[in-house]
Amino acid sequence: MPRRTPRTTVRRLPGRGRYDIATRNAILDEGLVAHVGFAVQGQVYVLPMGYARDGERLLLHGSIASRLMRHLAKGAEICVTVTLLDGLVLARSQFHHSMNYRSVMAFGIARPVTDAVGKRLALRRLVEHLVPGRTADSREASEQELAATQVLEFRLDEASAKIRTGPPGDAQADLQLGHWAGVIPLSLAPGEIEPVPDLAEGIEAPGYVTNYRRPDGTKIADG
Amino acid sequence: MPRRTPRTTVRRLPGRGRYDIATRNAILDEGLVAHVGFAVQGQVYVLPMGYARDGERLLLHGSIASRLMRHLAKGAEICVTVTLLDGLVLARSQFHHSMNYRSVMAFGIARPVTDAVGKRLALRRLVEHLVPGRTADSREASEQELAATQVLEFRLDEASAKIRTGPPGDAQADLQLGHWAGVIPLSLAPGEIEPVPDLAEGIEAPGYVTNYRRPDGTKIADG
Repeated sequence: MPRRTPRTTVRRLPGRGRYDIATRNAILDEGLVAHVGFAVQGQVYVLPMGYARDGERLLLHGSIASRLMRHLAKGAEICVTVTLLDGLVLARSQFHHSMNYRSVMAFGIARPVTDAVGKRLALRRLVEHLVPGRTADSREASEQELAATQVLEFRLDEASAKIRTGPPGDAQADLQLGHWAGVIPLSLAPGEIEPVPDLAEGIEAPGYVTNYRRPDGTKIADG
Repeated sequence: MPRRTPRTTVRRLPGRGRYDIATRNAILDEGLVAHVGFAVQGQVYVLPMGYARDGERLLLHGSIASRLMRHLAKGAEICVTVTLLDGLVLARSQFHHSMNYRSVMAFGIARPVTDAVGKRLALRRLVEHLVPGRTADSREASEQELAATQVLEFRLDEASAKIRTGPPGDAQADLQLGHWAGVIPLSLAPGEIEPVPDLAEGIEAPGYVTNYRRPDGTKIADG
């Protein structure tokens, strides 16, 4: 179970807190960018990073030359937050305007994955998280590329989700106001694909590119 | 000018760093969710929050009853990061897979806005940032609602942007591989609007709802 602890318990609007694994995984598997927070000599940084979930761990990666990655690889305490924006909530009153969203916040320690096999498996997971089907249709990392990549893993031992869904919650007295109210749903949508200018003739875009879409975890959030 | 300081200078891949105001503002004005990082007794938290830019300051808000808002209102040092995901970058080599994105990272101190006029203006900016045109078509905050809302401002004195655009950067030796390569553009797109179930008859969705879209700052990023 994602551990419900004092720091992962949702206190404001506790009805928005979720502590089950299915909700957590659906959010992490749909998201593409994690915001990773950590402190260096008391200074807090929040950096956007790609990631992938592999069972009960989150994988992060970067260049072995990166100061950030070297810092994190020392076993830094980090807070990883993934947020999916699902819609804008328009109430009759400005006060009750809100956003529908699903987010996961996780606390823990980043540890480097150092063995070559584990690193290779992690890089595959990272590519598959981005574009399912892509690892079988691209060149694997060379030994040199593998050595240049820092892979970190982060156990999902202490994570919780926070969710808002549904229509606005206007006060009874405002229901007769003449303003439109409701939700403008938002989701990350693919646009027209852009092949590289130097693509060799005869290479068609594969189905996993032309039919690209993120998994839709909103059903789980409603359940 | 957004201040370029040691902590806002992009070190890895310095070509991705941007320090001009137009780029910074375009990202902040298009984004909807900020990830706010801060430390409480050494523990780092990263929370997603709505925000708005008002000139050279960022506005945040929440309930006066929120522990978070009370902590931040004491003058906490925060790091605010806004990230827009623009696309998935598929190289022939897994190593060169990447994401196109635009992000802003800002450092500073959150200060409460306490005067009633300033608070009211800030709340208007927050609603207008979410849905331009909405303040004129919704009920303003009552005195009681105003008192229940904590508004924080954060000077954009020290902020920088980081951007990746364009196609993948495969090595020369990989160009002849038979894999498709290119970019899958991604953007936050509105879906079919969802009026509240109890909407009074005869209230049509206004144009600012039916034609909703975020400002498109990608042109500035390319320039």
